[in-house]
Amino acid sequence: MQNQGAAGNSVGIVVPQRFQAGDDFPLQCDEVLHGFAMVYETYGTLNAAGSNAVLICHALSGNHHAAGYHSEEDDKPGWWDACIGPGKAVDTNRFFVVAPNNLGGCHGSTGPGAVNPETGAAYGPAFPTVTVKDWVRSQALLADHLGIRRFAAVVGGSLGGMQAMQWAIDLPERVGAAVLIACAARLSAQNIAFNEIARQAITSDPQYQNGRYRSTGSKPNSGVGLARMIGHVTYLSDHGMGRKFGRELKSGDIKAARDVEFQVESYLRHQARTFSQRFDANTYLLMTRALDFFDPAEDFGGDLVVALRQASADFLVLSFSTDWRFSASRSKEIVDALIAARKNLVSANIESEHGHDSFLMPLPRYVSVFKAYMERLAERAEQEAADAP
Amino acid sequence: MQNQGAAGNSVGIVVPQRFQAGDDFPLQCDEVLHGFAMVYETYGTLNAAGSNAVLICHALSGNHHAAGYHSEEDDKPGWWDACIGPGKAVDTNRFFVVAPNNLGGCHGSTGPGAVNPETGAAYGPAFPTVTVKDWVRSQALLADHLGIRRFAAVVGGSLGGMQAMQWAIDLPERVGAAVLIACAARLSAQNIAFNEIARQAITSDPQYQNGRYRSTGSKPNSGVGLARMIGHVTYLSDHGMGRKFGRELKSGDIKAARDVEFQVESYLRHQARTFSQRFDANTYLLMTRALDFFDPAEDFGGDLVVALRQASADFLVLSFSTDWRFSASRSKEIVDALIAARKNLVSANIESEHGHDSFLMPLPRYVSVFKAYMERLAERAEQEAADAP
Repeated sequence: MQNQGAAGNSVGIVVPQRFQAGDDFPLQCDEVLHGFAMVYETYGTLNAAGSNAVLICHALSGNHHAAGYHSEEDDKPGWWDACIGPGKAVDTNRFFVVAPNNLGGCHGSTGPGAVNPETGAAYGPAFPTVTVKDWVRSQALLADHLGIRRFAAVVGGSLGGMQAMQWAIDLPERVGAAVLIACAARLSAQNIAFNEIARQAITSDPQYQNGRYRSTGSKPNSGVGLARMIGHVTYLSDHGMGRKFGRELKSGDIKAARDVEFQVESYLRHQARTFSQRFDANTYLLMTRALDFFDPAEDFGGDLVVALRQASADFLVLSFSTDWRFSASRSKEIVDALIAARKNLVSANIESEHGHDSFLMPLPRYVSVFKAYMERLAERAEQEAADAP
Repeated sequence: MQNQGAAGNSVGIVVPQRFQAGDDFPLQCDEVLHGFAMVYETYGTLNAAGSNAVLICHALSGNHHAAGYHSEEDDKPGWWDACIGPGKAVDTNRFFVVAPNNLGGCHGSTGPGAVNPETGAAYGPAFPTVTVKDWVRSQALLADHLGIRRFAAVVGGSLGGMQAMQWAIDLPERVGAAVLIACAARLSAQNIAFNEIARQAITSDPQYQNGRYRSTGSKPNSGVGLARMIGHVTYLSDHGMGRKFGRELKSGDIKAARDVEFQVESYLRHQARTFSQRFDANTYLLMTRALDFFDPAEDFGGDLVVALRQASADFLVLSFSTDWRFSASRSKEIVDALIAARKNLVSANIESEHGHDSFLMPLPRYVSVFKAYMERLAERAEQEAADAP
């Protein structure tokens, strides 16, 4: 069975690439990586002026496979295929799109599964804490490697949007525009609480083996599955879940109170199973910690306005009406700070019943706003290329 | 150290009592309990006419100890001491208050820890499914035992409010008023999802031993603790957690991304530890199932209005502004159905930052509304007593 790669609006079959950074890379936690690998994909073509590059930053459970397919038989496209491709919001006919897997990841970039050159053994739970700031600096090395001095846009949803914000603050000269979708300037106590429960679910799974599960051949699927279920419920809205599942039964008889299984239970268990097959426990812990620690205002006396004053980028800020993980009011905080910092910005709150997950979906108004904004950036990139000496 | 029992607004020291039902008790699931024990407390005095009795129904993790202390040294009063006592909303100077531990509980009433007379061994995970309807029928037997033909009020918050609603529908002649606080007419898919994750946390704990942990001497503290953390976060509001914990650190240095522990993490772990010491895993599973299955409209073609038409009680319906477990809109559904069913009702939505947990707290407007309503019922009960032949 062939996939939709031939349908014209897909980037088609893509081959992941690998960037090896050789130099020591000091992290925010003061530990040092002695070089690192970063897996990434690219879609489209970098123009001669290097003005049309877009960086896609992934969220908690994402990776470098943002669009297209890995083979003719591959039936599942990259995680943001709804928004990346020829003629899509991030139009690969006009942009050169770079999608890396973050440091600490479990899909090829250096992370807990990699060998620590100092010990000859896998890092496992000893992999150092990585932060959003570390990710920005490591992604900048990839940009150097690819000959990209400045991104037309750095784009992300959720934790990806946080990276885009940090890029604009830390490396202002390298970001033309930052697109922050369904994100927050920092996590609330409730956000941290849900992350902590997910971490407890993983670390209290006896199969976790204090993080040394790889060497003992065990796998904390149960803990990772629970973590995913907890996360997943926070990605959906109460209303959306009601519309999708209601109180429909998969089996049993609720009047007789016998053998009852609700559809939503069966769905969650399926999510848990498939996620725990594909995602590494130590990476999950590390990614949630990066989320918790994110606070770009911290370096500026806790003042987000001062932090954002560092940026020279334009901003697009998008939120979704039923997102309660990073609600519209969290995006408003960012918008208010951007206004106070005298930045160019466009923002919109999109009506959607799909909660936080909305950012992954081809919702008409969302795609339309996102696409219009990106088209303006594409025109600007093309003008820059035309003006180049 | 003496407790506040002497302070005048406490019911003081109370002694739990025990009711033994001897007859076979058929459950909704068609299984039969060959008699059962029900532990309960009472506060105040039943008048000669028997018109001033109030039944307090407990929620998921509650029990019969609703008010007062168990000894002079006891430093923690019953779970609803804020609302039950001399001069309080449920005034024990005027009402005879009955607070049972539900069937299936783990604090003395027949439940998974009890011995199955048919096998001579503890029921454990084989304890039959109990439903809100079963609880109502079993509580009615306790009322018979105590000589209470009709309750002046059946009162409860959360799952307790659901029991009050079911009482009004199933035994209309025995309920003068039903007080439904922070509850819903049935669970949403999201509610069920959170319960299911809690159950998965318990049953996937290897110490759970398929529910036979008592006989093997193990204890699924980790799973029960996780379940409690998941529940607890849904009892609090995002705003309330932000006010209480914010991003305050208990230890570590977030700028250096080192050894960071947020206050909210430490708090949740403490909650998990103390709850898992006092609560039984099989009971937790059974209580969440009773919540999931609750749907009083089910017997009436799914129409809540028809269901509530069975009731002859008056109703008080209270909700809290930041409650997102059973939000104000869920109380509105009940109110709308009560209006359509032509019932006498009073309802209020109370501003509070404490989320679902608000119903346990002495919030001024909440207590004031609740107390005023209960005073009217006390007057009615006293009038009935005066009119009695």
